[in-house]
Amino acid sequence: MTIQNITKPMDKIPANVNGIPQQVDLNTALNMLESVMNDIINSDVTVLRDASKHILQAGGKRIRPRVVLLSHLATNGNQIDKTVKIAAAIELVHTASVVHDDINDHGVVRRGHPSVNAIWGRTFALLTGDFLFTKVYELMAPFQDLNIDFSEATVALVEGETLQAAAVKDNNLSREVYYEIIAKKTAALFKAGAILGAKMANASQEFIDALGNYGFNIGLAFQIIDDLLDLTGDVEQLGKTAGIDVEQGKGFASVQSDSSANDPMAAIREKMMDGETITKARMEAGLLVQSAIEEISILPESPAKDDLIALAKSVIDREF
Amino acid sequence: MTIQNITKPMDKIPANVNGIPQQVDLNTALNMLESVMNDIINSDVTVLRDASKHILQAGGKRIRPRVVLLSHLATNGNQIDKTVKIAAAIELVHTASVVHDDINDHGVVRRGHPSVNAIWGRTFALLTGDFLFTKVYELMAPFQDLNIDFSEATVALVEGETLQAAAVKDNNLSREVYYEIIAKKTAALFKAGAILGAKMANASQEFIDALGNYGFNIGLAFQIIDDLLDLTGDVEQLGKTAGIDVEQGKGFASVQSDSSANDPMAAIREKMMDGETITKARMEAGLLVQSAIEEISILPESPAKDDLIALAKSVIDREF
Repeated sequence: MTIQNITKPMDKIPANVNGIPQQVDLNTALNMLESVMNDIINSDVTVLRDASKHILQAGGKRIRPRVVLLSHLATNGNQIDKTVKIAAAIELVHTASVVHDDINDHGVVRRGHPSVNAIWGRTFALLTGDFLFTKVYELMAPFQDLNIDFSEATVALVEGETLQAAAVKDNNLSREVYYEIIAKKTAALFKAGAILGAKMANASQEFIDALGNYGFNIGLAFQIIDDLLDLTGDVEQLGKTAGIDVEQGKGFASVQSDSSANDPMAAIREKMMDGETITKARMEAGLLVQSAIEEISILPESPAKDDLIALAKSVIDREF
Repeated sequence: MTIQNITKPMDKIPANVNGIPQQVDLNTALNMLESVMNDIINSDVTVLRDASKHILQAGGKRIRPRVVLLSHLATNGNQIDKTVKIAAAIELVHTASVVHDDINDHGVVRRGHPSVNAIWGRTFALLTGDFLFTKVYELMAPFQDLNIDFSEATVALVEGETLQAAAVKDNNLSREVYYEIIAKKTAALFKAGAILGAKMANASQEFIDALGNYGFNIGLAFQIIDDLLDLTGDVEQLGKTAGIDVEQGKGFASVQSDSSANDPMAAIREKMMDGETITKARMEAGLLVQSAIEEISILPESPAKDDLIALAKSVIDREF
């Protein structure tokens, strides 16, 4: 099962009774999301508008917004208008980090299209990322205390990226450091998304915690698989410049480049492809997904809960 | 009069009567500001903490926070604890843009010290800027609707920087475009700071508008003088790499580089130093400062109002 086909509309949209906002299905919410993102990135400054549209419309799997929206729906939330804004803010922060990441990594392909820096150059790519970061201030304006959860996750994202760059520089990527990196740069935002979706539904603390753990675990699994695909995939299949993360020592498992070799990457690749590293990594990702699904077993049955389970599974089944 | 000596303590701090928070003097508020900024940039990730401390402690004139705090005090505000957070957020956004600007401009000196990219390299400088942008989410969390004013100004800042880079690229820096650039990249944040300080004091709309216009005008004047100093100053006096802005065609006045010359910058410099360009620019800045001071003539007399007037004057009197 791929991530594309998990969003089936609910069989029946609940009626709008007594003026209480009705629950909408995930596809409706995802359409609202695109509309909110398109509106927010509008700017009189052509290059910012065009570059932002380019990277957003290039696709991306919207997996983080899905987590926000499904957490909200699975805890019986009906504040979808507001929750879509939080989902958009999370996707914009992620997108900003992707744009800046491609500058630092000299990535020229992203989401199957040329990266922003490949088309507009580094200066405008840097400013496009900044534009997206600052547009988030507007989106998150109504949410007062929820900005604390949001802020912690976005700061963690930047910290994770920085730890990664530092590990590359110091040639020190232990298993422990690797997990710290992916927890911060990826899992924290998944976790915050799940928590925020549930908080917007006034869910119980038990449900909020369960969904937070769900988000954190699938975030870790998602990044592990991402790094594996980066190691083994080709550009066409992957939709981004492959091997860059690994060339910079970002990949899964503890690796130390052999500085005496002519091509240190050859040694690293060999070491990682060799033995059981990949099998082990896949297994760990599978266990994380299993934990994620167990965490949300306490939620009442609903189409959204089914979608959360399918989403978790899709994280490890994907080949892109 | 330089900007350093305008912050005289009030003769007497008003007593704390009936549990109503007392007004504090500007120096106290500025000390609180340093403390808030120092706390917020704390991070377990060494390079982010060190690089953020470096750029913040390298000085900077804190002119934007001064505008926020003085607007608050001049409209009889007593929410200094909260207002200091907004002032800190504005200074962090400005600082983030400075760090990113030095990447794009290859600036190696900033505030009289090596720039972040000069010490830590481009990758870490980019991430340090991102770190500062995202830390602002946390600072601004309590302020709900005020985030709209704040967001508009920070988005404008990035748009202004982008317009500037586009004007350089297209070699099209008319007087009109120049004013649009400095309005967005500098004056908008000064304006927002003044408005936010006044709103935190529950000031009347009349006072809010007057202070907004004050901020906007001194922001324009500040940037005009900054560009003039960039053109005429040396690094030691200026505290940053001089001439870069002009070399990139950012400077004051309408200039078109002569592509037939061996050194196009020589022609631009000559054109700008020649004639009355500099005199005219100084005069325009002076008129803007005059307007700013007239705008706030409706405010009641207070030490903070005197400080606002002195601050406006210092913008054009400075030689650094």
